[in-house]
Amino acid sequence: MSARAHAKSWALVEKARAAGITPTAVIYPCSEEALKGALGAADARLIAPLLVGPRVEIECIARERGIDLSRIPIEDVADPEQAALRAAQLVHEGRARVLMKGSLHTDELMRGVASRRAGLLTRRRVSHVFVMDVPTHSRLLFIADAAVNVAPKLRVKRDITQNAIECAQATGIQTPKVALLSAIETPSDAMPSSLEAAALRDMAVRGEIVGGIVDGPLAFDNAISAEAARIKGLATPVAGEVDILIVPGIEAGNILYKALVYLSNAIAAGVVLGLKAPVVLTSRADTEQSRIASAALACLVARASRLSNRVG
Amino acid sequence: MSARAHAKSWALVEKARAAGITPTAVIYPCSEEALKGALGAADARLIAPLLVGPRVEIECIARERGIDLSRIPIEDVADPEQAALRAAQLVHEGRARVLMKGSLHTDELMRGVASRRAGLLTRRRVSHVFVMDVPTHSRLLFIADAAVNVAPKLRVKRDITQNAIECAQATGIQTPKVALLSAIETPSDAMPSSLEAAALRDMAVRGEIVGGIVDGPLAFDNAISAEAARIKGLATPVAGEVDILIVPGIEAGNILYKALVYLSNAIAAGVVLGLKAPVVLTSRADTEQSRIASAALACLVARASRLSNRVG
Repeated sequence: MSARAHAKSWALVEKARAAGITPTAVIYPCSEEALKGALGAADARLIAPLLVGPRVEIECIARERGIDLSRIPIEDVADPEQAALRAAQLVHEGRARVLMKGSLHTDELMRGVASRRAGLLTRRRVSHVFVMDVPTHSRLLFIADAAVNVAPKLRVKRDITQNAIECAQATGIQTPKVALLSAIETPSDAMPSSLEAAALRDMAVRGEIVGGIVDGPLAFDNAISAEAARIKGLATPVAGEVDILIVPGIEAGNILYKALVYLSNAIAAGVVLGLKAPVVLTSRADTEQSRIASAALACLVARASRLSNRVG
Repeated sequence: MSARAHAKSWALVEKARAAGITPTAVIYPCSEEALKGALGAADARLIAPLLVGPRVEIECIARERGIDLSRIPIEDVADPEQAALRAAQLVHEGRARVLMKGSLHTDELMRGVASRRAGLLTRRRVSHVFVMDVPTHSRLLFIADAAVNVAPKLRVKRDITQNAIECAQATGIQTPKVALLSAIETPSDAMPSSLEAAALRDMAVRGEIVGGIVDGPLAFDNAISAEAARIKGLATPVAGEVDILIVPGIEAGNILYKALVYLSNAIAAGVVLGLKAPVVLTSRADTEQSRIASAALACLVARASRLSNRVG
C-alpha cells in the first residue's frame, strides 16, 4: 500500500490497529492464499486468527508452501459447512468477533453463516459494503451493495443503506452523507431506480433510516462534484461531500467498484454487514493491500458494534 | 486537451480533421455556450456550422458576448421544434451531415429529430455511445447505452450493440471487441442482465450482430484486465482488449462514464447513432475537450456512413 497514494486506507488500517487485535475465525482456509491472507492481517497486528477447517489438510498446505502456523490455533472440522457453523459458534462464545472467508465459495460461506442454524442473523438484512480509496478523490467512498443483494427490494435497500451508514460511522464518520444513485435527479416512472431513491429519501425523512444525511435520486456527477451540482442548479447537502453511494443495483455497483480499482488505481476494502459479526470476503484477484484494508474495516465494524451493544 | 494524458482522443480529433470539414446543423443555439461549442468545433477545423434558430435572438446573444458570427450562416426559424425539423431537412438536402444540439433540452431535441416527420429514422433503433479516453488505460473505451435508452429490451440492446460496433469501426477499429457486461460470468436467472448478455452473445454467433467479437456475460474486471480473467480461469477473446462495453442498463452506464470522468480524469465524447445523421449531444457540464472530441466522433461516424452508402 503506497502511503501517499492511498493515505485514506492507510489511516483506516492505523485506526483499526490502534483499537487492538481482533479475534477472527478464518473459515476453511485450505489454500495458500487463504492462509497468507489471514497471516498477513495477523502480521499487520489487526487480527488474531483462529483457523477453522480440516487440520491435517491445512497443516500439509502450510508445510508445502513454507507457511509457519506454529502459533496459530486450528479448530479441526471436516468440511466447509461445518467450518461455517463452528465459526458461528466461536462468535457466540465470544472467541471470534470477525469472520474471514477462506478458500470456500462465497455462496457456500454465506449459506453457512447466514443460515438460521448458525444463529448469527439479526433483524437487519445482510448486505455488503465496499470502501474505496481512490487516489484522485479526497474522501473514502463507501459503495453498497455491489456484491451480495442481487435485486434488492425497497425494504432491503433500506437495510443496505442503514448498514452502510453504521459502517461509515464505525470508521469515524459521525454523520455520513449518502447519495441514492440513479441516472437522473428527478423521479421518473420510466426509471424505477429513481422512484426507489425518492422513496428511500422519504424513509430517511421519516426516521426509518437514521444517522446519515440522505439525498436522492442523484446522478453520480452531482454526488461526487459540488461544481457539477452547481452547474446543474441542484441544491443538495451531499454534492461534493458524499461518503456513501447507494447504487441502483448490483450490476451498477459491481461495474463502479471494479472501474475504480482497474482504472483509478483504487484500493477496495469489503465487508459483509448485518450478521452478529462482520464477514471479510476476499477474492483471488484481491491485492495484498485490499486484503489488509478489508480486515481493518471488519475490525472497526466489530469494535463499533461491541461498543454500541455495551451502551445499548 | 493535454496531448499526453489524452493522446487517444487527440488522435481521434486528428483523424477527423484529416478527413475534411463536415457541414453541421446546430439546432437552436440560443446560449453563449451553445454558440461557443459550435464555433470551437469550427475553429478546430472539424465542422462547418450552419446555425438553425431565431436569427435575431442568436445575433443578439453573439453581439452581447462578443462572439463573431460574420462568416457563419443562419437558417432563421422561430422555435426549437422547427429548428429540429429544419435541421432534418438540411440533412435530406445534403447540406448537413452532422446534427449538433444547441440550447434546447435533450428530450425536445430527440423528440424533434427522431420524429416520423423529420424523416431521419432508419431501421436501426436510436442509441447513444460514449467514447472514453481514460489516461490509465491504453485503449479508447466505447460505452453504450449510458444516455438514451432507459430500459432497453433485448432487440433494442441488439441495435445498441450493432450501432456501437459501427461507431468503433468509424474510428478505425476494424473488428472491435465487445463485452456484454453484467456482475457475473455465468448466466443466472437471478440476474436478468446476465441472461440478456448470453442471449446477445448468441445473436452474435447467429449473425444477428456483425462486425465485432462479442462475449458475455462478463464482469467489468474480466473485460478490462487479461490478468483478472486469467486468475478467474476465464477464457475470453475480449479480456484485456475490450473496445466496447455494453452496459446492463442506463444507470450502470451513466455511473460508469461519470466515474471515469470525475475519478479517472477521462475525456468523454458522445454521439447519438441510428438516425440518418449522427447527433452530438452536449451538456452544460462538458469540458471544451469533450465537446471537440464529440464533434470529431460525429464527423467520423458521418464519414463512415457516407462511404458505406456509396459502396452499398
